[in-house]
Amino acid sequence: MKVSEAGERAIVKRIKELLHSPAIGDDCAFIESGKNYILITTDMLHRKTDFPREMSPWQIGWMSAAVNLSDIAAKGGKPIALLFSIGLPSDLELEFVEEIYRGMQACARKYKAEIIGGDTDQHEELTIAGIALGKIDKKLLLRRSGARAGDLLAVTGSLGTCGAGMRIIIQGVKAPERARSKIVKKFFQPEPRINEGMKLARSRALTSMMDISDGLAMSLYELHRANNGKVGFKVYAEKIPVLKEVKLIARDEKDLLNLAIYTGGDFELLFTIKPEKLKAAQAACSFTVIGEVIEGKEIILEHWGREIELREIGSNHFKKLEV
Amino acid sequence: MKVSEAGERAIVKRIKELLHSPAIGDDCAFIESGKNYILITTDMLHRKTDFPREMSPWQIGWMSAAVNLSDIAAKGGKPIALLFSIGLPSDLELEFVEEIYRGMQACARKYKAEIIGGDTDQHEELTIAGIALGKIDKKLLLRRSGARAGDLLAVTGSLGTCGAGMRIIIQGVKAPERARSKIVKKFFQPEPRINEGMKLARSRALTSMMDISDGLAMSLYELHRANNGKVGFKVYAEKIPVLKEVKLIARDEKDLLNLAIYTGGDFELLFTIKPEKLKAAQAACSFTVIGEVIEGKEIILEHWGREIELREIGSNHFKKLEV
Repeated sequence: MKVSEAGERAIVKRIKELLHSPAIGDDCAFIESGKNYILITTDMLHRKTDFPREMSPWQIGWMSAAVNLSDIAAKGGKPIALLFSIGLPSDLELEFVEEIYRGMQACARKYKAEIIGGDTDQHEELTIAGIALGKIDKKLLLRRSGARAGDLLAVTGSLGTCGAGMRIIIQGVKAPERARSKIVKKFFQPEPRINEGMKLARSRALTSMMDISDGLAMSLYELHRANNGKVGFKVYAEKIPVLKEVKLIARDEKDLLNLAIYTGGDFELLFTIKPEKLKAAQAACSFTVIGEVIEGKEIILEHWGREIELREIGSNHFKKLEV
Repeated sequence: MKVSEAGERAIVKRIKELLHSPAIGDDCAFIESGKNYILITTDMLHRKTDFPREMSPWQIGWMSAAVNLSDIAAKGGKPIALLFSIGLPSDLELEFVEEIYRGMQACARKYKAEIIGGDTDQHEELTIAGIALGKIDKKLLLRRSGARAGDLLAVTGSLGTCGAGMRIIIQGVKAPERARSKIVKKFFQPEPRINEGMKLARSRALTSMMDISDGLAMSLYELHRANNGKVGFKVYAEKIPVLKEVKLIARDEKDLLNLAIYTGGDFELLFTIKPEKLKAAQAACSFTVIGEVIEGKEIILEHWGREIELREIGSNHFKKLEV
């Protein structure tokens, strides 16, 4: 069977079986370091699938740092360091390469990570494999597993913004200049939710957390599987936070919901809260409760009193899968 | 200026300037963890440049683990964990992918590292970005810098074997079957010098260490630069260790020297020893003293009483550069 026929999930499942490694399958891997865990994560980005032509080299650098830091945020971790292995096409301008590193450096500095190493070679397609290292007190580590029926389901920030950005950039959908620039900035220059993740972890109010890289629906299915398929989720459509600028891009309410649920790239945090600890979580940072953890396997959207099962799809420029 | 015109060394130099990061430029990066350093290193390998067609998928996996572990060995570190980001062509057979992971796992187990995570996506060319993590007592960390005039220069194992392997595989040079199989095994399945590295570090007899990935000459130039250009090296041609099987591949003595000096892929350790501590180093593991650290900038080969300056070249299937 070929890779394309097997599908990525089957491949990852097979790899996990082969490696017998229980540690595999979260946003980050981790190793012990005294009272802390050192968190390690890696993401490989490619020119064709991950960097639209409209993205500046500075933004390519920023994005490469941000997607890796987002995985540290998803564990509640404090960033320590970044490394980048870069495959450079031989006809790339040196100035372009420098701008990539300036963008990486800007994102690294903002989130207090030092770029400590990496590896450079020539490659047909621009390829950037980033590594982020972070740390977290062993007692505070948040995993994807841990959600229990009755917990509240919440997200930071707003959803669908990068989906709207893709429509603007890739499909050429028109938008007023201010809306366009706000949306495209979030699409090209996402902010990893480092501070929110650290504060939420310290609040001890959460039972699980992950970052949304492939859209809300895909992430809920991943959260469901990470919890051994033992919990479902109910999401209230009217509670899903979307920017008013994104409403200008959507054709109608249903289309807006599709953007918010089935498009990725926002890198917001998705997490579950012990209901009795909601106040403690709210004291940590601002977020929106969008639903709850339920018994069973279903992932349901409640919309105008009707219940619809969410599909496991996500349109995303970051077509990848954690193993 | 384009990447191809600037050359890789100029690019790496420019990146270092941009990042103002003093930590960059050794085999591994490191972060503090109590009385230890956690070592981190990454190497990206590509189908076309790094994996000859004759290599089995199991060997591709082994090699991907080994090259990363070799950087841990070069610091005297004890391996902890490996992660792999893999870009898979869609028409690759699933069985091929499984064999890659089996090879990774075999190498990881042999050197007591756990594969703890990674990332999989689709990519035109098979691309494997590995990460190795290790640890070492802060007091024992060996760097590329630290060599002083008067120190002895030494290598583990033997040199030129992988260069001979390339001749067999890529140029079709003939060799008796036993020699062929021994050489090709080392070429396709290099052993990282983990145990030697750890023991040498613990001996406290060394002043600097690195691994030889691009050949002896290239590595000596790198060691020279890592020591701020303040030391040179003198190598005695007759002392360079080569396998008797490699002698069967070489056309003559000069050609044998070229293999041993200007071809890479052996992943042996290259290190400098305080002369008064030679016994302590010899008690740690077996190696060969091939020369000495000298004052000045020259990198000299002494051969039949004549002194020749080594050129900074290396033919290597691992065409890459640490940043």
